[in-house]
Amino acid sequence: MHIDILTLFPGMFDGVLNESILKKAREKGKYSCDLVDFRNFTENKHNKVDDYPFGGGAGMVLAPQPIFDCVESVTKKRETKPRIILMCPQGERYNQRKAEELAREEHLIFLCGHYEGYDERIREHLVTDEISIGDYVLTGGELGAMVVVDSVVRLLPDALGNSESAVEDSFSTGLLEHPHYTRPANFRGMKVPEVLTSGNHAHIEEWRMRESLRRTLERRPDLLEEGNLTDLQKTVLAKLKNEQ
Amino acid sequence: MHIDILTLFPGMFDGVLNESILKKAREKGKYSCDLVDFRNFTENKHNKVDDYPFGGGAGMVLAPQPIFDCVESVTKKRETKPRIILMCPQGERYNQRKAEELAREEHLIFLCGHYEGYDERIREHLVTDEISIGDYVLTGGELGAMVVVDSVVRLLPDALGNSESAVEDSFSTGLLEHPHYTRPANFRGMKVPEVLTSGNHAHIEEWRMRESLRRTLERRPDLLEEGNLTDLQKTVLAKLKNEQ
Repeated sequence: MHIDILTLFPGMFDGVLNESILKKAREKGKYSCDLVDFRNFTENKHNKVDDYPFGGGAGMVLAPQPIFDCVESVTKKRETKPRIILMCPQGERYNQRKAEELAREEHLIFLCGHYEGYDERIREHLVTDEISIGDYVLTGGELGAMVVVDSVVRLLPDALGNSESAVEDSFSTGLLEHPHYTRPANFRGMKVPEVLTSGNHAHIEEWRMRESLRRTLERRPDLLEEGNLTDLQKTVLAKLKNEQ
Repeated sequence: MHIDILTLFPGMFDGVLNESILKKAREKGKYSCDLVDFRNFTENKHNKVDDYPFGGGAGMVLAPQPIFDCVESVTKKRETKPRIILMCPQGERYNQRKAEELAREEHLIFLCGHYEGYDERIREHLVTDEISIGDYVLTGGELGAMVVVDSVVRLLPDALGNSESAVEDSFSTGLLEHPHYTRPANFRGMKVPEVLTSGNHAHIEEWRMRESLRRTLERRPDLLEEGNLTDLQKTVLAKLKNEQ
């Protein structure tokens, strides 16, 4: 997979791309990534990427010319049909299903604006996807792009080491994870539930399943409706609901 | 405001904290931020922060001791009552309301895990908040902490410059933004809507209000239910629904 990130702040990505899994996966050749400053594609003499909005009002708007030209430049370099992703609050809400969809692509291009809005023609005639990572206001699209890149790259085949991929992720199973405990069994008087130190694996599995269901029921009942529960899970869930 | 970020990967934050608004706001004294590697608080000779889960299973679990000790160390340094925030997929879904709530605090502490789960005693006996930035799996809590820090710092009084704060943000008004256009009026044959170049400000305001409602209706009808619409907005919305 190749990733192009179009941004006015390429330096923002330094730390995130050069640590942990994003670094290791790049070194293993699982993906490559270019940071492209679209200010270099302006055709005006002051290298301005934004301009006043038609119709008046506060704030600036990212002009179409540098963005279109920059996207065309990175697209021409490869024989791929890229997904061109605009990071913006109006976009489709990002989730694990979308991450899995993007992880099957060959080439992703991210457009990150900063402060400003985007000229609507970018949205209508250039991009293939608009993504929002959540209902909160960020300074720019850069953090959103990092989030999407991180969640996608870790899904690429063999991108994760064994220890990392072994974790049963929340959302990938459809339920929230059960509680975890490690040593010491008694930490400042706070003790591990007895069942976990019992050595009875059937009881442990039962406890974990129940606690996973309980947590999902308490915190994210919306996930339960979507999940495909087994008959046993349904029985346990019904009991938990009765207890409430 | 003071922010402590407890992480095993302090280098991940380099780019994000040292660019744009997070940098400017720190230089203006709006907040201070320390990155604290909780590996320095381990009491075992190999500086291990995680251990095998009680009850068996794959994956490692962050042990309580280094986290409790690290939080106590950064808490003791100040006479504040910090919010202690665990970044995790099981947490409360982050939104703009939560950002506004956190922006009123004096001291925030973020706990970022990586790959592993957290020992449940951290969750039950140490943290005040558990936050998830969205329904997707990330490598660690670091990106989530960056997202929360960015969204909170930009709300601090005078953290933003005029040009930045002037933008009408999606979510802060309760509706998605209307489309924006800037020069050129005709870009490769793609034209700006005539009303925006008409000079008729009443028509422009009406168009913007309608398009903002239309976009919200099409993309995020859930926001409309929450919003407090004016009578005029309600009338326009009813018409838009009829057209659908």
